[in-house]
Amino acid sequence: MPKPSHKDKLIQSALSEFHEFGFHATGVQSIVDRAGVPKGSFYNHFKSKDALGLEILDVYWSANQTARDTLTDCNRPALERIDTHLAAFSGSEFGCLVGNFSNEMANSEVFRDKLNSFYDTWLSGLSTCIKDGQSDGTIRKDDSPERLAEFIIGALEGAILVRKIDHKDTSLTGFRTSIQKFLST
Amino acid sequence: MPKPSHKDKLIQSALSEFHEFGFHATGVQSIVDRAGVPKGSFYNHFKSKDALGLEILDVYWSANQTARDTLTDCNRPALERIDTHLAAFSGSEFGCLVGNFSNEMANSEVFRDKLNSFYDTWLSGLSTCIKDGQSDGTIRKDDSPERLAEFIIGALEGAILVRKIDHKDTSLTGFRTSIQKFLST
Repeated sequence: MPKPSHKDKLIQSALSEFHEFGFHATGVQSIVDRAGVPKGSFYNHFKSKDALGLEILDVYWSANQTARDTLTDCNRPALERIDTHLAAFSGSEFGCLVGNFSNEMANSEVFRDKLNSFYDTWLSGLSTCIKDGQSDGTIRKDDSPERLAEFIIGALEGAILVRKIDHKDTSLTGFRTSIQKFLST
Repeated sequence: MPKPSHKDKLIQSALSEFHEFGFHATGVQSIVDRAGVPKGSFYNHFKSKDALGLEILDVYWSANQTARDTLTDCNRPALERIDTHLAAFSGSEFGCLVGNFSNEMANSEVFRDKLNSFYDTWLSGLSTCIKDGQSDGTIRKDDSPERLAEFIIGALEGAILVRKIDHKDTSLTGFRTSIQKFLST
């Protein structure tokens, strides 16, 4: 295996620091310290902390691709796909990076644009899955797939957010049961 | 009306700055600038930015007392009380300060303790209301009042969080309808 480059090390370090402490509370110094690379190296690879933040969001988003693929796996019942998808978000004591950045970076147009593109893709995958469940009669039809998907994504982000404080139900078991009840016919 | 004191001005300024930009992104300098008071005055009134942050949370929490009182107003049907309660959180483009601090300050025990005391009080009021609705048969009984309340608070915080990015449904109308459907028998 090739040795990780300085850039790789900076990305891994920034991902951990941003996730654990937040974007604004993390300085470039702590990122280079954790990465174990010289500070000068940072600006060889990234124009600014903002540029790195945007790249980190892409890395995090890509790492969750498998969880999103579950949603469009036609070989499994829709409700089961949704439950597996939600379960993928359990266990992180530092929350969801998309939610964390949504909170901290709502004032920045460039971050908002990126986050909106994520939410759009996410909504689309979840809506498709809900549509399948509505077609086969397992998911309620009194709301559009898009509205139900929007509700679930918000509810998931909020459940993860409150868990950062109360440390209850970090497995999201109760939350997932509530979502199944909410969607079932 | 008496002129607001330096302390009052600092509290109003910090409330606005923390709400709009977040805790970490706000410096003491921008708080005193917005308040229009000398910087020295800050440390006469507050030991640190953290101490001010804790005080601001209390101010924000107290300002929402009316919304919480709605939950225990026995003269109104439980579902209606919940809807009025949720409606009180609509319209803020900067999100809910309790949610915002939950995201940013989860690493601080003293902030976590305060936020947990808020969530406990909130859960208790909402659970009481749900219990009333379960007793008169208007709210489903297949989950405990506490579990349902926990789900709703998370879902509300998440809906508000995602609205900071997508700017859709800031009135929370769709969200409130979903909650009514979720709870109704």
